[in-house]
Amino acid sequence: MTKSIVITGANRGIGLGLVFFFFFFRNCSRIPSRNAPKSPELQALNDPRLVIVEMDATCDDSFTNAALQVAQTVGSSGVDILISNAGVIIPVNIDAPINRKEAIKNFDVNCIATMAVTLGFKYLLKAAAKKAGHSQVVNMSSILGSVSQTWGAVAPRHFTVYSMSKAALNMYTKTLSMEWKADGIRATSIHPGWVQTDMGGEEATLTVEQSTSDMAHTIMKFGEANNGLFYDWKFEAITW
Amino acid sequence: MTKSIVITGANRGIGLGLVFFFFFFRNCSRIPSRNAPKSPELQALNDPRLVIVEMDATCDDSFTNAALQVAQTVGSSGVDILISNAGVIIPVNIDAPINRKEAIKNFDVNCIATMAVTLGFKYLLKAAAKKAGHSQVVNMSSILGSVSQTWGAVAPRHFTVYSMSKAALNMYTKTLSMEWKADGIRATSIHPGWVQTDMGGEEATLTVEQSTSDMAHTIMKFGEANNGLFYDWKFEAITW
Ligand SMILES: NC(=O)c1ccc[n+]([C@@H]2O[C@H](COP(=O)([O-])OP(=O)(O)OC[C@H]3O[C@@H](n4cnc5c(N)ncnc54)[C@H](OP(=O)(O)O)[C@@H]3O)[C@@H](O)[C@H]2O)c1
Ligand SMILES: NC(=O)c1ccc[n+]([C@@H]2O[C@H](COP(=O)([O-])OP(=O)(O)OC[C@H]3O[C@@H](n4cnc5c(N)ncnc54)[C@H](OP(=O)(O)O)[C@@H]3O)[C@@H](O)[C@H]2O)c1
Repeated sequence: MTKSIVITGANRGIGLGLVFFFFFFRNCSRIPSRNAPKSPELQALNDPRLVIVEMDATCDDSFTNAALQVAQTVGSSGVDILISNAGVIIPVNIDAPINRKEAIKNFDVNCIATMAVTLGFKYLLKAAAKKAGHSQVVNMSSILGSVSQTWGAVAPRHFTVYSMSKAALNMYTKTLSMEWKADGIRATSIHPGWVQTDMGGEEATLTVEQSTSDMAHTIMKFGEANNGLFYDWKFEAITW
Repeated sequence: MTKSIVITGANRGIGLGLVFFFFFFRNCSRIPSRNAPKSPELQALNDPRLVIVEMDATCDDSFTNAALQVAQTVGSSGVDILISNAGVIIPVNIDAPINRKEAIKNFDVNCIATMAVTLGFKYLLKAAAKKAGHSQVVNMSSILGSVSQTWGAVAPRHFTVYSMSKAALNMYTKTLSMEWKADGIRATSIHPGWVQTDMGGEEATLTVEQSTSDMAHTIMKFGEANNGLFYDWKFEAITW
């Protein structure tokens, strides 16, 4: 059976990598100059199963429109998997005066925008669950969002607010997994590993291909037992 | 030995309750009409060990001033315990269009303001640690901030973003516990129980007295083994 998969932030990095490992998907991008219709990698795919949709996760109208465009393509079969991958990392040094407006962007994009987009796609997730018995939300979290696994030194010091936003995102995953269960919608958090992207940097241990090929397999294996939990790209469980 | 304790949000609710169980403390309030100098309960205490300081946690100048005023009183002995208690709950229904500006206030007050205030008091916490060997940050969290303990039904649905902000606050506690350890500063999260305050409502299971008398004892018992962990008012450990 063909699955409809929506991936946000698919014009570069991990989102773009995931595109190569799925059949039928959407792309959502934010900055017009970098947006999906202008992403050479995406255009190069030239696959009829690919539908590119523009979206700014910080603009409410934008993702309502994105959901509408997706609805026109998928119709009553809905969306089987929504991968909320779009995210930012705004470094904040916990030992220096905090730029509150900048710091809060970590929460605005990684948490609030994700909630708004997810709600925007809910009717399509419900439609898929009605046909297939279930649908799946995947929130792109990070090992840095695991309170129990947090380690000291450089990473937490500068990425504290990012880590906080991913811990908060994990709470959203957990809440969804209970609240939307009756609609057949599952929710799971995933950590992609440390990946060579604009965000991860060149020193990261995994290439985009290594991370996303494993991750796509892991996501396709998600079942009822994985609802409301947290895994890494290789399907290893992570504690909150 | 006399201990200097700073409590934010001490003009009402749990913060005010804690005042009755500590000797030497500060109060920080936000809204001028409700501020500490005008809180009849605080004024009635009329205890020379009590120093009331006004503070708006969302205004950077305000807590820098508050720390300066505290410094003038405590001098080089610093602050032994900082209890970041000020907090808000802005309900957000995850199934209704989200008012992003309102929703984000949960993160702004409960997380970003707490970080800014904590940094503002760092030199006083360090001073106390230099004299006494250690000092203690206590972040007023909530069981709703425990991802592993989250339960379904009414509470999470409406309090999701609040819960997310408390999970994020817990991540801050954990990070501090590692990053400021070398300065002798410890950090611990605490859940006060469900308490009869403006926030907790009349149906809450604990009176302010029940929660805060236990909590004050628990806080006084915090030692090195409790650094970077999460407890309830009765000193029972809570998983993240
Ligand atoms: N790389 C790692 O090592 C790593 C590790 C753990 C978790 N993660 C998570 O994995 C996800 C993807 O990361 P990445 O490494 O691929 O990052 P990236 O290379 O920086 O790409 C980020 C993606 O998110 C999109 N995005 C950001 N803000 C947006 C907004 N407001 N609206 C719409 N799209 C927006 C970007 O679109 P534009 O091009 O339009 O900006 C881009 O497509 C993130 O959630 C990140 O936190 C990454
Ligand atoms: N009550 C419960 O059942 C419960 C359960 C779990 C956790 N908690 C947590 O316990 C803490 C205290 O709660 P509570 O029940 O005592 O709440 P409350 O009765 O609503 O009191 C909140 C306190 O925080 C202060 N505050 C809020 N925003 C502020 C700001 N921007 N700047 C300075 N002060 C600010 C308030 O000052 P103003 O009077 O000036 O607004 C007030 O003193 C909160 O962090 C809450 O999340 C409470």
